[in-house]
Amino acid sequence: MDEPTQQIKIPAGFRFAGVHCGLKRNPNKEDISLIVCDNPATAAGVYTTNKVFAAPVRRDRSRTPSDKIRAVITNSGNANACTGEQGEKDCAEMANIVAEQIGASADDVLVMSTGIIGVHLPMEKIRSGIAAATGQTGAEASDFIAAARGILTTDNGKKIASRSVTIDGRTFQIAGMCKGAGMIAPNMATMLGIVLTDAPLSVDQAQSVLSQVADETFNCIRVDGHMSTNDSLLLLASGAEGGETLTDAQLDQLQVAMKEACEEMARLIPADGEGATHLIKIDVEGCASVDDAKKIAIEVADSPLVKTAITGGDPNWGRIVSAVGYAGVTFDPLKLELRLNDILLYQEGTPVQFDAKNVSQSIKGSFETHVQLTLFEGDAKARVWASDLTVEYVKFNADYST
Amino acid sequence: MDEPTQQIKIPAGFRFAGVHCGLKRNPNKEDISLIVCDNPATAAGVYTTNKVFAAPVRRDRSRTPSDKIRAVITNSGNANACTGEQGEKDCAEMANIVAEQIGASADDVLVMSTGIIGVHLPMEKIRSGIAAATGQTGAEASDFIAAARGILTTDNGKKIASRSVTIDGRTFQIAGMCKGAGMIAPNMATMLGIVLTDAPLSVDQAQSVLSQVADETFNCIRVDGHMSTNDSLLLLASGAEGGETLTDAQLDQLQVAMKEACEEMARLIPADGEGATHLIKIDVEGCASVDDAKKIAIEVADSPLVKTAITGGDPNWGRIVSAVGYAGVTFDPLKLELRLNDILLYQEGTPVQFDAKNVSQSIKGSFETHVQLTLFEGDAKARVWASDLTVEYVKFNADYST
Repeated sequence: MDEPTQQIKIPAGFRFAGVHCGLKRNPNKEDISLIVCDNPATAAGVYTTNKVFAAPVRRDRSRTPSDKIRAVITNSGNANACTGEQGEKDCAEMANIVAEQIGASADDVLVMSTGIIGVHLPMEKIRSGIAAATGQTGAEASDFIAAARGILTTDNGKKIASRSVTIDGRTFQIAGMCKGAGMIAPNMATMLGIVLTDAPLSVDQAQSVLSQVADETFNCIRVDGHMSTNDSLLLLASGAEGGETLTDAQLDQLQVAMKEACEEMARLIPADGEGATHLIKIDVEGCASVDDAKKIAIEVADSPLVKTAITGGDPNWGRIVSAVGYAGVTFDPLKLELRLNDILLYQEGTPVQFDAKNVSQSIKGSFETHVQLTLFEGDAKARVWASDLTVEYVKFNADYST
Repeated sequence: MDEPTQQIKIPAGFRFAGVHCGLKRNPNKEDISLIVCDNPATAAGVYTTNKVFAAPVRRDRSRTPSDKIRAVITNSGNANACTGEQGEKDCAEMANIVAEQIGASADDVLVMSTGIIGVHLPMEKIRSGIAAATGQTGAEASDFIAAARGILTTDNGKKIASRSVTIDGRTFQIAGMCKGAGMIAPNMATMLGIVLTDAPLSVDQAQSVLSQVADETFNCIRVDGHMSTNDSLLLLASGAEGGETLTDAQLDQLQVAMKEACEEMARLIPADGEGATHLIKIDVEGCASVDDAKKIAIEVADSPLVKTAITGGDPNWGRIVSAVGYAGVTFDPLKLELRLNDILLYQEGTPVQFDAKNVSQSIKGSFETHVQLTLFEGDAKARVWASDLTVEYVKFNADYST
């Protein structure tokens, strides 16, 4: 599925490995992914808000933000979620093995897991996988990509992005990897993401920039509205560029570049959503607050009736307008405007004459559909990316034979 | 689809008609439904909370509760929603025609509409339909059933229930009709319901009992989680039984019978949900509040991953447990218990050994699947009924050709 290794610039200060240890059936697919920091790195995390969360989420949450992280070890194929005390022990052991091999403290190793829920980790395979990974880390793009492949489950291919940004004469690299295609059968779960930079950031800067970027990117994607037990997004800043910690103004510029890279990665997830035939971009403008705009966009994104209308190429604006109405946001419905792929469908509480065939063709002719909603309550706006809902989604998730 | 006319007892004080006027293509299907009260009736209403709501919802909301309602006129095939000022005028005209024909004030006539959104009512057909209906009302069960059929859209058959209840030597009749099968294409929308009784109720009693009953029945059903612009539930109390207005203790007993009838009707809606192959009954117990229990049940009911698991006969408990976790309710996940069709699957944060084949068979072998979640936070509980999610649902809602 993957195209040939892209020419991406890897931030300095990190080494990578991706190996196969038998968690995935296909021996050509990496299932252990390791990122090692040459020196203690600043790290921040954003995690699932699900009350039912996996052992590695508990662990990483208690260890970030930090200024001394040395490695991130990830396994795919098993989420280590709903696995009780044994799950906690297995998670700790993963960190211990890495720490021993690279000469670090286990406290400074982060762990991520993704895959089936409620099954104990096959620790024998994982032990040998981690040993193999620590023995073959490298700093080339191909090593980075092997690591990016090691975190995938049912994804159709790696999800990576990178940016280079020059700020006041200093050039910083940003590169990231993520995974996710919905929370998909058999019990496959999780969005995972890791963003790396060689910029020098303080602990507070790292957490602040990651939280803001996550809110505008990875927290704005929907496949099926089902929140996983393992969602984790990490930022590691090696500081290997060598200069002073960034000023606030410099940080703002870095954040712009990081947001671009994360948006590029984030939209790959619903675009690769289970059975998806359309990526739906939902823009909501003119709201009293960003929170209001996001609530509306998410309600539209999660409506199975909106999703199936897009799947069928149906300019069924009543479904979109009514979803706006139940988002729990106060607004004047008589001023609501709706455009689909730039064509006006609804204005001032009244249907607009439009060429339905033309709109239908514009949906059917493109992988991306643009839903544009305008309210007249303020200046705030939000964008959400979603998958449509297809027969293949239902088949994939219903036809799992027990 | 309908079975022969059931032996239902109709509350005294009402007359009914259901006629065909051309809104539905099939000339054998009633599309105008009329209920006339012999004398001014006490009436209460519960309506959609969607900010985008239809003209009849605006009208009825401003006229209930009331102690002088004389009729309810309903058309199917067109929701009169998102139709601007013309929609308000058309709605008012429907009430005016009925009022003139039966010698009442238009202010005392309620209006309900259901069907396509965003299209103006074909008033010529509706005028002749209302004239025909007012000329042929009757108080027989067959008249009641004609009226019950007149409010249907894509439902597979009428949805009615009745109860007889004797309280302190007085016998009251309760009978109701409703419609709904999801918010379904092409733009078909709406749950509508009307509950009738010959008990004498004050305005406050009527509104209080209806609000409570709605909360426990019609507000506990989910097909696709998409809230319509037209949802309306009305209660009419004729007082034709003849005695004094009920005491509070008597009202409590009436409410029990009314809740039974409404639950019987309410569960018919997800059971008839678009393409549904399972009715999912979700019981959540041991919560700190009813609101908490309902939030959890609704989140489980709306998860496409839970729905598709039931469709496929998959005892995929990780999907259910993780949906509980993101319902926004505070609880101890290490104490959560899950049973499916009475079989224990998950306890104290740890998977339980169970016979997956056996559970799968119990799902596949029955139309109804029972999801039982127990928390240990308090004594509150809630029950929600939902449809599963099938390939047919997606086909029906995507394959509408514009």
